[in-house]
Amino acid sequence: MWLHEPTAFGAALAPAGCPPRLSQAAAPLTRAVEVINEFGQRRTMHIPAERGLTVYVDKRELVTLMTLGAHPEWLVLGYLRNQRLLDGPEQVESITVDWDVGAAAVRTRGGVTGWAERTAQRIVTTGCGQGSMFGSLMEQLASVRVQAAEPLRQSQLYAILRTVREQDSVYKQAGSVHGCALFRGEELLLFVEDVGRHNAVDTIAGWTWLQGEQVLRGDDKVFYTTGRLTSEMIIKAAQMGIPVVVSRSGITQMGLEVAQQVGVCAIGRATHTRFLCYTHPHRLVWDTPLS
Amino acid sequence: MWLHEPTAFGAALAPAGCPPRLSQAAAPLTRAVEVINEFGQRRTMHIPAERGLTVYVDKRELVTLMTLGAHPEWLVLGYLRNQRLLDGPEQVESITVDWDVGAAAVRTRGGVTGWAERTAQRIVTTGCGQGSMFGSLMEQLASVRVQAAEPLRQSQLYAILRTVREQDSVYKQAGSVHGCALFRGEELLLFVEDVGRHNAVDTIAGWTWLQGEQVLRGDDKVFYTTGRLTSEMIIKAAQMGIPVVVSRSGITQMGLEVAQQVGVCAIGRATHTRFLCYTHPHRLVWDTPLS
Repeated sequence: MWLHEPTAFGAALAPAGCPPRLSQAAAPLTRAVEVINEFGQRRTMHIPAERGLTVYVDKRELVTLMTLGAHPEWLVLGYLRNQRLLDGPEQVESITVDWDVGAAAVRTRGGVTGWAERTAQRIVTTGCGQGSMFGSLMEQLASVRVQAAEPLRQSQLYAILRTVREQDSVYKQAGSVHGCALFRGEELLLFVEDVGRHNAVDTIAGWTWLQGEQVLRGDDKVFYTTGRLTSEMIIKAAQMGIPVVVSRSGITQMGLEVAQQVGVCAIGRATHTRFLCYTHPHRLVWDTPLS
Repeated sequence: MWLHEPTAFGAALAPAGCPPRLSQAAAPLTRAVEVINEFGQRRTMHIPAERGLTVYVDKRELVTLMTLGAHPEWLVLGYLRNQRLLDGPEQVESITVDWDVGAAAVRTRGGVTGWAERTAQRIVTTGCGQGSMFGSLMEQLASVRVQAAEPLRQSQLYAILRTVREQDSVYKQAGSVHGCALFRGEELLLFVEDVGRHNAVDTIAGWTWLQGEQVLRGDDKVFYTTGRLTSEMIIKAAQMGIPVVVSRSGITQMGLEVAQQVGVCAIGRATHTRFLCYTHPHRLVWDTPLS
């Protein structure tokens, strides 16, 4: 479906230029399936929906994203941002998602400069352990150094964990999805789930590109993910300028090395009152005595 | 390091042709790091090692794999197999891994036919939710239909889960890795862990390529993974001809659809005596009455 007026999200972009027109093709997030349990009993369960979404940029096929389908337009925009195929959302005239054909049509204003070189480079994906151009990525990272407006307090971290626990989520209903969330201090700005961790963070990156400066600035933000702190999670947070990354899971060695290098405070194994701070502890204030 | 004699693994390949020479560059699997916990106390923890391994095929850079480093030569061979860049292990003269430069040098016998087309296609990775060529992959799958020598018994499934629980694993020491395993009935043939699920299954695919027919045949095998049953996990099992796939986690919609299509019995949420059979229950015999 086409929106011939800027969307609410697009409108928020106005200061940064003419906003993209976005379809609003959200799709059902779970699907009922019949299973047989260990007693041999038939049961109906819910599993997360998963759809192939093939992205076409100015009619050129780019990639097929397997997604839950909650926010496909933000996902596509964030993918283009994090793959560094676009320099700003104002380059996009429209993103139109049509689930009948599993396609996202991106129309740019004036095309993408250096398309061949940009598409030749796929960001490394530590989470799946298979990617490319790792060397060049690390070179690009050498210039990245995130700053924090002020340290995060342990009490704010606990409020963040409480908010995440209380989210009404696909995970609670169907499992098998990753969640991530963007916070300003302990204030939740956006919570996103997807079948792939990359999609969830890319969706946040796409959404922030459509908001005003107060959302777009990273230095007062906290990024939460249910998944491991792999290098690409740290990298994507750092690209958004976010100085604190929190995970329910642990960290990988590359994630740790990248966090140390770019100045991200990496906090893992974070549940209820427990957590481990892996890097840059000066970004965290231990203000909550635990008995 | 070069091995100028076929390795034990290579030797097992003899019936299928001249075996590749493989270096044996296993590396330390965990690394000690200092963390600060919720009490502000410094602690030493172990995290999984993670290394970039850039694969060169006849001196052409192909991909950088982020790996734990336990079995890099099998990983590289399995990656080339599952990406369909090679038709058989006999095409490989040698695989030499050098951690000092993070490189795996693959020498082929007579090169790779159709290199450009083959490398243009990257298998879809549902786990990370981002891949390419999904359409062509599904077309290729249309011809795949796995067969089972005989059904798996529930009691064998429970023996498999017990064996996996009892593995001495990096996961138990450091967390943040995925494990997968190949079983013949309830007999464990190989257990592999890696930072990426793709690497773990690719390592198994590489190892089986180096074994005799009794290991290479899939119809009497069971594939276990700690990760979700995503489409690429089912696809990679199906490419090995394995009719039963078991996971501690759940299933995604694409994983379910692919399993239904290719004839794989997908069993998820499998821990102790609990499990859910999502597809092809005729491949499983409920022989264990539970009170």
